[in-house]
Order: sequence, then structure tokens, then C-alpha cells
Amino acid sequence: MALGATFFGFGSHNAKTEGWRKLYTLSFFICLIASALYLATALGQGQSIVYGRPTVWVRYITWSLSTPLLLLIFAFLGRTSLPLTGSLLGSNAFMIATGLVATLSPKPINYIWYVVSSAAYLAVIYLLLVPFKHEAERNRPRTQTAFNRLITIHLMLWTAYPIVWILAPTGIDAIGQDFETMFYTILDVASKVGFGFLSLNTYSKIERIGAVAEDLESTAPIVPFSATG
Amino acid sequence: MALGATFFGFGSHNAKTEGWRKLYTLSFFICLIASALYLATALGQGQSIVYGRPTVWVRYITWSLSTPLLLLIFAFLGRTSLPLTGSLLGSNAFMIATGLVATLSPKPINYIWYVVSSAAYLAVIYLLLVPFKHEAERNRPRTQTAFNRLITIHLMLWTAYPIVWILAPTGIDAIGQDFETMFYTILDVASKVGFGFLSLNTYSKIERIGAVAEDLESTAPIVPFSATG
Amino acid sequence: MALGATFFGFGSHNAKTEGWRKLYTLSFFICLIASALYLATALGQGQSIVYGRPTVWVRYITWSLSTPLLLLIFAFLGRTSLPLTGSLLGSNAFMIATGLVATLSPKPINYIWYVVSSAAYLAVIYLLLVPFKHEAERNRPRTQTAFNRLITIHLMLWTAYPIVWILAPTGIDAIGQDFETMFYTILDVASKVGFGFLSLNTYSKIERIGAVAEDLESTAPIVPFSATG
Repeated sequence: MALGATFFGFGSHNAKTEGWRKLYTLSFFICLIASALYLATALGQGQSIVYGRPTVWVRYITWSLSTPLLLLIFAFLGRTSLPLTGSLLGSNAFMIATGLVATLSPKPINYIWYVVSSAAYLAVIYLLLVPFKHEAERNRPRTQTAFNRLITIHLMLWTAYPIVWILAPTGIDAIGQDFETMFYTILDVASKVGFGFLSLNTYSKIERIGAVAEDLESTAPIVPFSATG
Repeated sequence: MALGATFFGFGSHNAKTEGWRKLYTLSFFICLIASALYLATALGQGQSIVYGRPTVWVRYITWSLSTPLLLLIFAFLGRTSLPLTGSLLGSNAFMIATGLVATLSPKPINYIWYVVSSAAYLAVIYLLLVPFKHEAERNRPRTQTAFNRLITIHLMLWTAYPIVWILAPTGIDAIGQDFETMFYTILDVASKVGFGFLSLNTYSKIERIGAVAEDLESTAPIVPFSATG
Repeated sequence: MALGATFFGFGSHNAKTEGWRKLYTLSFFICLIASALYLATALGQGQSIVYGRPTVWVRYITWSLSTPLLLLIFAFLGRTSLPLTGSLLGSNAFMIATGLVATLSPKPINYIWYVVSSAAYLAVIYLLLVPFKHEAERNRPRTQTAFNRLITIHLMLWTAYPIVWILAPTGIDAIGQDFETMFYTILDVASKVGFGFLSLNTYSKIERIGAVAEDLESTAPIVPFSATG
């Protein structure tokens, strides 16, 4: 994570355009926040026994800070409108907050909050798959494949989180706490460092396609002009 | 509350213009946050005994999230400038934060914080009645009556909150905890669902008046043109 | 602090231009937040014994709210770009958050977090001294001296905070808790009320130089025009 943060930090510093700088800066802070989480966990901090379950509540604090930045990367890449960006951030905040409440609630109340939090996640999925994709395709023509890949990978990673939650001691306790920690760590590295690189890759594709599109447009008027000549 | 949220949610989804979408989205999240509060209260969560008083502190957490959205509705309807919007949000946050401190403080210190919080509320009243109204009338001409009604109803509802606070066990304990909960619930429904509908109504008035104003302006140049013809 | 808040509050109310109103409003809220901190401290609230040390944790809550406003003053004065403003606010939030964790951690773990927090502060210093200064000089020509003074005084004041922290009971305990409180109070007054006045002074200089620059530019085209005449 710290390595990822360092990489994105230097990238931000040397970014050529304002767009690249925004993207690198967002990825940098996502990895920085996650690094602080892992430092705290390594020092044995940020966890307590809640209703007989060992609970790493600090995870939810760092998620509440890093997931909005992840969604801002989406909003930046897709040039998302203000109401949609707000809805994405709001649904996401609602999902994390009710997820934390689920984690801190005694059974069986925690399952009620788990359902509420999952419903908020379904709203995030819907917002990304329908209105976000629609706006992105309108604002960034010819980039459909790049966005499809970005959204698919993102949703696959995020969907694993509630599955780990329900299998872990927070839920039905089918896997132990060690596997819970391991799975969350793998998911965090993939969805933060991995996703950071994927978004850089997507943006460079968007820029290239955008440049080609502009070239086509700027060469287009030459044809009728020479035809009249 | 959940019904209100559902209504505004669908409204947001089917909104024709960006303006309507913003308004519906804000109302949706206001009702969604309040629904989470009532779910928590129904499950017996978010309350503790603080200095011998039963204290529903979760109310302040949800208010701190929903009241800025309410003020953003004002800012959107009145096309409020950035410094004024910031001042409104800042005073409101200060009011809620010191109100929470008042609720969590032992007597008689809680009265000091109550006075501080009430002073912040007076600042909100002043900001809405004088600079906000002034800006709204300049930015949205011919809508004075609509704004007067909106501000009057809003201030009547919000003023009831500190009155309930001082009469409830948090203050001089003239009414019991059951009445406290009942009054807060009625006020919440009125100031969230009710106010949501009122703001939709106000916006449709503003749009209609705006359209008339634009029609008048677009027909105006015809007169001198035909006069010269 | 309350006096400072009152002064900036009236200033904001009577501000002639939107720029001045923003500046006064920011200073007003910085002093207002600090006043609430000192009221809480005076009432003996916001402190607990953590790992045998008396800890005024409420300081970190108010700092986390007032320091971003201070940095927004910088961003406003220097017309800072969005990625840089975000980086400044992000590094600052990371610094305060890890500083709070340091204060609430047992020894020797607290020194690890102190180093992390200090590293974030070094990032803030770097961002102000290099990219911020660079952008400010490009956006506000001929104001180099004013910005140099502003940044120097700001960094001198802020650098004193981690020094007090390490000398106080939170660190190696070379000075007692009374001196800790005294130093923090002096620093707060200087870096909030004092800095507020300094920023007003800087802005009036920027405006005066800007006006002169515009005068020079508007008189410049006259020369070639009269030369061709």
C-alpha cells in the first residue's frame, strides 16, 4: 500500500496535465489512507471486542474516507453530472455507515442493518451500471469498452466485501477471523492499488480515443473545403 | 419517512431537468437519513443514559447530515452565493455540534451550551431572513411570495426544536421522554417530508414565473423592431 | 478569540466585494470554532485521562475543522488549482488524524504515529513552499513579497505545534501540562486571530497591486495606438 501511495504520489508530482494530476492525487490519497489503516492494524490498534466478536472498526473509518475518492475517480473519468456524483457519494456513505452499524450491533439486529447496507450497495451498482454508464458514453464517445471493463472489475471486487462480511465472524462465522483479515487485505490491495493502475490505464485510453476523435473532427472540414476548391 | 424517500427517489430518477433532479435527490437523501434514524430508534439503538437522562444522541448524528442538505435546497432555490451558503452551513453545523454538546453535558453546564447553540440558530434565522431573502429576490425576480412562505414555514418548524429541547428531560423536564420523542417525530416528518414537497412546489412556481419573465423579455424586442419597420 | 470572531463577523457582514466577504467569513468561522474549544476547556470538558496522561482530545476535533479553513484562505489568496487545494486539505487532514491517534496511543506506539503525522506536516510545508508559491506567483503577479511573508509566518507558527507536542506530557514530558496549555493557547491566538489579520492585509496588498497591474495593462495599448495615429 505504501509503495502504491509512493508511486501515485510521484506520479501526481510529475503529472503533465491537470487531469492526470487529479487522477494521481486521488489514487495517492486512497493508498495513503489504506496504509494508515494497515499501520494501525499492525500496531494492534483500532479493534475491540463488541458483543463477543473481535471487531476491526477502524476499517470502516478508513473505508468511509477512501471509497468516496474511488467514486470521484469514476466521476472524473466519466465527467459525471453533479446530481449523479452526489447520489453515488450519498449512497456509498449510507452503505458504509449502515455497514458499520451492522458490525457494531448485536445479533440478530446486525442482519437487519446488513440488509439495509446491501440495499444501498445495490443502489450504487444500479447508479454505476445505468446512469453513470449512460453519461460516460455520452461525454466520452467511443470509450464504451474501456468503461465496461472498469465497471465490471470494480463491481466484482466490491461485491466480494459483503460476501466476506456475511461469512466472517461479523455474520454467520463460516470462516475464522484470520481468513476474514486475509480476504479483506487481498481485496483492499486489488481494489485500491490495482484499481488505481486500471484507472490510469483507462484515462490514457480515453485521452488517446479523444485525441483521435478530435483529429477526425479537425480533418473532416478539409474534405468539403477541398471539394469546393 | 421511507415512503417519502421512495417518492423522492423515483422523482429523482424520472426528473426531466438537472434542476429537478438536484431537488429530488436532496429530498431523497434527507428522508433516507431520517429513515435510518427511525430504524435505529425502533431497534432500541443510538441511545444511552448520560448523567441520569436517557439521551438519543443518534438524532444529532442524523441531523448533522440532513440539515445541511435542507439548507442546500434553500441555496439551490435562491441561487445563493458561495460565501452565504458557506455561512449558512457553518452556522448550522456549529448549532448542531453545540446542541449535541449541550445534550451530553451535565447540568447546569448544558444550559451554557444551549444558549450558545441558540445563538447559532439566531444567526441561521438572520442569514435566511436578510441576506438569503435579498439574494433570492435579486436572482429570482417576482418570486417574493413563494420565498416568504418557504422561509416562514421553515423557521416555524425549526424554532419548535429548541423549545422541545428545553421542555424535555434534556432541559427543565416539563414534558416526559415520550412526549419529547412524539414531538421530535412530528417535527421531523413535517420538516423533512412536508418541506420536501413544499420545496418542489416552490421550484415549480419559480420555474413558471421564470418562464413568464423570459417570455416577456423575448417578446419585448419585437416592439421597437416593429416600430422602426 | 470571541472578540476576533466578532470582528471578522462584522467585517464579513459589511464586506464590499465577494472576495472580501469570503475572506472575512473564513476568518470568522476559524475564530468561532476556536472560541467553542476554549469555552469547552474552561468548562472542564473535552479531556480525559488516556494511558495515564491528561489528554485534551477536543483540541484535535476543533483543529480538524479550523485548519482546512485556514488552508482555504491560502487557496483563495493564491487562486490555487483544485488538485493542489485537495492535496493540501488531504495532507492536513491526514496530519491531524494521525496526530490524534498519536495522542490517544500508549507509549511507545505514539512516537510511530508522531513520525507519521510529522511526515504529513512536511508534505504540507513542501506543498506550500513549492507548488503553492509557484501557482500564487503565476496567478497574482508582483505579489511575491506578500506571499513570502504570509507563508513564512504561517510555517513558523505551525512548526511550533509539533515541538510543543513532543515536549509536553503527550511526548517526553519536559514541560508540564500547564505550559502545554499556555503554549497551545498563545499559538492558537497568533495563528488564528493574528493570521486572520495578516491575510486581510495580504489581500488588500494583492488587490492594490492587481489594480496597478490592470492600470498598466489598460494604459499599455494606448501607446501603439497613438503611434499609428
